[in-house]
Amino acid sequence: MKRTAFFISDGTGITAETLGNSLLSQFEAIDFERITLPYIDSVEKAEKAAARINQAAATHGHRPIVVDTIVDKNIRQILDSADCLNIDIFSTFLAPLERELSIESSYRVGKSHAATTSPNYLARIDAVNFALDNDDGARTRHYAEADIILIGVSRSGKTPTCLYLAMQYGIKAANYPLTEEDMADLRIPKSLEPHQQKLFGLTIDPDRLAAIRNERRANSRYASLKQCYHEIDEVEMLYQRQNIPFISTTDKSIEEISTRIMEETGLQRRLKV
Amino acid sequence: MKRTAFFISDGTGITAETLGNSLLSQFEAIDFERITLPYIDSVEKAEKAAARINQAAATHGHRPIVVDTIVDKNIRQILDSADCLNIDIFSTFLAPLERELSIESSYRVGKSHAATTSPNYLARIDAVNFALDNDDGARTRHYAEADIILIGVSRSGKTPTCLYLAMQYGIKAANYPLTEEDMADLRIPKSLEPHQQKLFGLTIDPDRLAAIRNERRANSRYASLKQCYHEIDEVEMLYQRQNIPFISTTDKSIEEISTRIMEETGLQRRLKV
Repeated sequence: MKRTAFFISDGTGITAETLGNSLLSQFEAIDFERITLPYIDSVEKAEKAAARINQAAATHGHRPIVVDTIVDKNIRQILDSADCLNIDIFSTFLAPLERELSIESSYRVGKSHAATTSPNYLARIDAVNFALDNDDGARTRHYAEADIILIGVSRSGKTPTCLYLAMQYGIKAANYPLTEEDMADLRIPKSLEPHQQKLFGLTIDPDRLAAIRNERRANSRYASLKQCYHEIDEVEMLYQRQNIPFISTTDKSIEEISTRIMEETGLQRRLKV
Repeated sequence: MKRTAFFISDGTGITAETLGNSLLSQFEAIDFERITLPYIDSVEKAEKAAARINQAAATHGHRPIVVDTIVDKNIRQILDSADCLNIDIFSTFLAPLERELSIESSYRVGKSHAATTSPNYLARIDAVNFALDNDDGARTRHYAEADIILIGVSRSGKTPTCLYLAMQYGIKAANYPLTEEDMADLRIPKSLEPHQQKLFGLTIDPDRLAAIRNERRANSRYASLKQCYHEIDEVEMLYQRQNIPFISTTDKSIEEISTRIMEETGLQRRLKV
């Protein structure tokens, strides 16, 4: 079955999208067409949005699902009048919160919600730059400054995880690729020794690794199953011998790898919300 | 006033965190201590979480706010019995959705919600690698493959925006830094000419730019106000002369810059939800 879902916001739409996708994922039998309409911050834009909703209802013979985080009353009214099932996050949950906190929300008094600008901008950019400058073992001299150093074989997920940790949490994450030379005597490389406490290992199912490497360099020794099995065998042995905590990235999203690392290491986010 | 808020999930906690922060931002007068508890997926972990909630209630003399996306009934029951105001996203919104869609949700039948693994993994990693390989004008020969090419002066926000576009939307975003040489005759560099349709400009308030550059290279000519004013003046002239769409990154989060670019260019996300 097909249905249309709109995620509507006067800002980026990220909250409406995140919550909306989470709710819709509970209905696996339905194939949702998802449309995000961000920056709906004027009556004119709201009227266009309402027209799109009504058109989708008329075309598909079902009223769309609308998940929104709109604050402004005039804009709300226009969306409310459209032909849809409206999941209205703010008006649903703010009343009980107001009672609990004995205070009126900015929503109630008609102010828009907090701007997306934050004092975190520089800390975040700093962390992203740190991840870029300390990617792939290119330099090891800044490791003293790192919050964490991810290690693992080529294509096990180190770089995107470092970037996500930087972007989402402001964590300074370096990464170092373990090569065959490094593995010769099953010890971590000399340059990593002073930072043993910061090391966190990634591993991955060898078949999955071979598939990923084949995308990059098809039919190479590097991408061969034999080579992948061999490398993964060695790094897992290394992690165990040296008591380095590690996690498998197989079948995990970058978000999940990152939040599990935060959880296991006890690292605290450096960005304020 | 201080209050404690818990964001609790059997997964990464990203949905509970995103919605929770959005709701709490409506109460600016209150200073919330925010604690995310991800991967609460067993009775044992739930009991520990409930104990933390009760302890916070006892310590601060106020019951905490708990925003959760827990599906499992046994785990829910344990959290429900804790001393808190529970914002229960799923049970609140799934009932009206079930009526609308005439179908039971996985929640109702006790299945956990969709796994975070997705067929997007490779597309996403590909896009992140593309952003890294085509960062800072290092190479221009892959521009034919790019979905978008961000241009702007050094430190105007190109790299983090490219990475966010890759991570969040799977968009292949390259970036090219406009230098003084490039600006000599107020035309885009030759290597960009074949890709004019893909160009998107970033600009930034010169005072803000000077502050950011000073963090990197204090008291340099590069970071001087005069230099920043001059460079921004020139790029904005260039954008206007050559009809290149552009956006100011001043006071905008990376999320906002990215979603506005998606909106203005009409680029479609390449990652399925």
